[in-house]
Amino acid sequence: MNEAITTILNHRSIRHFEDKQLSNEQIKTIVACAQAASTSSFIQAYSIIGIKDKEKKRKLAVLAGNQEYVAENGHLFVFCADLNRHDYIGNLEGKDVTTSIESTEKFMVALIDASLAAQNAAIAAESMGLGICYIGGIRNNLEGVKELLKTPERVIPLFGMTVGYPSKINDKKPRLPFEHIYHEEEYEQDKEVYLCQLQDYNQVISNYYEERTNGKRKDTWTEQMANMLEKQTRMYMKEFVQKNKMNLR
Amino acid sequence: MNEAITTILNHRSIRHFEDKQLSNEQIKTIVACAQAASTSSFIQAYSIIGIKDKEKKRKLAVLAGNQEYVAENGHLFVFCADLNRHDYIGNLEGKDVTTSIESTEKFMVALIDASLAAQNAAIAAESMGLGICYIGGIRNNLEGVKELLKTPERVIPLFGMTVGYPSKINDKKPRLPFEHIYHEEEYEQDKEVYLCQLQDYNQVISNYYEERTNGKRKDTWTEQMANMLEKQTRMYMKEFVQKNKMNLR
Repeated sequence: MNEAITTILNHRSIRHFEDKQLSNEQIKTIVACAQAASTSSFIQAYSIIGIKDKEKKRKLAVLAGNQEYVAENGHLFVFCADLNRHDYIGNLEGKDVTTSIESTEKFMVALIDASLAAQNAAIAAESMGLGICYIGGIRNNLEGVKELLKTPERVIPLFGMTVGYPSKINDKKPRLPFEHIYHEEEYEQDKEVYLCQLQDYNQVISNYYEERTNGKRKDTWTEQMANMLEKQTRMYMKEFVQKNKMNLR
Repeated sequence: MNEAITTILNHRSIRHFEDKQLSNEQIKTIVACAQAASTSSFIQAYSIIGIKDKEKKRKLAVLAGNQEYVAENGHLFVFCADLNRHDYIGNLEGKDVTTSIESTEKFMVALIDASLAAQNAAIAAESMGLGICYIGGIRNNLEGVKELLKTPERVIPLFGMTVGYPSKINDKKPRLPFEHIYHEEEYEQDKEVYLCQLQDYNQVISNYYEERTNGKRKDTWTEQMANMLEKQTRMYMKEFVQKNKMNLR
């Protein structure tokens, strides 16, 4: 197993960081790695906003649901789907690109591009001995995030990423069984197989929680998922995205 | 610079592969790396379909716009946004999760999850000396892909990824300037700065093409983008996604 694979398999989200900031050189390396990711038809439809300002981090932490590590970390990145650049380019080149950039297809392209870049950044940071945590919580209140980061139309902040020197390292969380995620030749639709795999996994997850909470918690994965999805969260998203002129047609 | 960062920065898309298949062990390692990526609230909202069958690869190559390397490679992965699993879990646990999994928010979550996993797979493969190329072309005809791979509702094949032993290695394509992708504290909206950065980059890209085509091609990046986006491609996507019960509300 090589170093890159060891880094990747060793991933866990880090939510406690030392009070030590990343150097500009570290930030540059991480962003260069993000930019090296594949991009659909060379479109590069994303932007990254880096936040050092303590006060701004604290405001973002509040918007993201009062998660302490959003304020206390070595650096905070915010990854955005960005087609504002291409709107500008359409005007510059005198071509009508509006229909295209307002399509669901290009919304997907921008999300995928931003995510590929982000994961490169994550692996790069982790390979330097830093820890990371994705902050989907910023989607709790994108109006607030948009105002704070002054993002224009056709830019959607997707998630934050806290990076820093870990002060506390959690255990790795077991993932779904390989056979449940990975299908051969075509999508596996046998419900009995499906159920068996989920039941096995439920046992793994239930044991995982039980061991780590001295028996206080032993919910299964399917319980956890059903409870989470029963709550209807961030239902404003469609309207927000469309108000920002993406995913319209 | 460590090995992981060297791998990441050394990325280029590989479109010519030796006729040598990946071993099952290689496939398992790549998928394990994909699964190690962060996932929003532990939702794991994606699936991966691995295709070995030559005939199926050939059919996918046709659907993706007759790209030879979709048929000729060491292995072909298709990454899918997948909320079908969570629909099933809702029924299993007797919870109404429908509104939630039909939301734009959860559509975004599934796209991000699938993309983070895919980029881990890409880095893992590249770190083993393999080459990769993302195949967005499968989105040219998702009805055809869906039929071929038998994906159910609430599953959207997002992109393929060809992996294999490189037989031809291209040059790296220069990315947008660091300052253009990376903003500090807030989104940079100074149009003059913006234009200068794009003009500098246009020169870089124009030189890049000119050198590699003996002067036959020297289009700039903004020209290339405007021409691409002027064409309205994959405009069926919104309807397709919604027919598959995602991004509805």
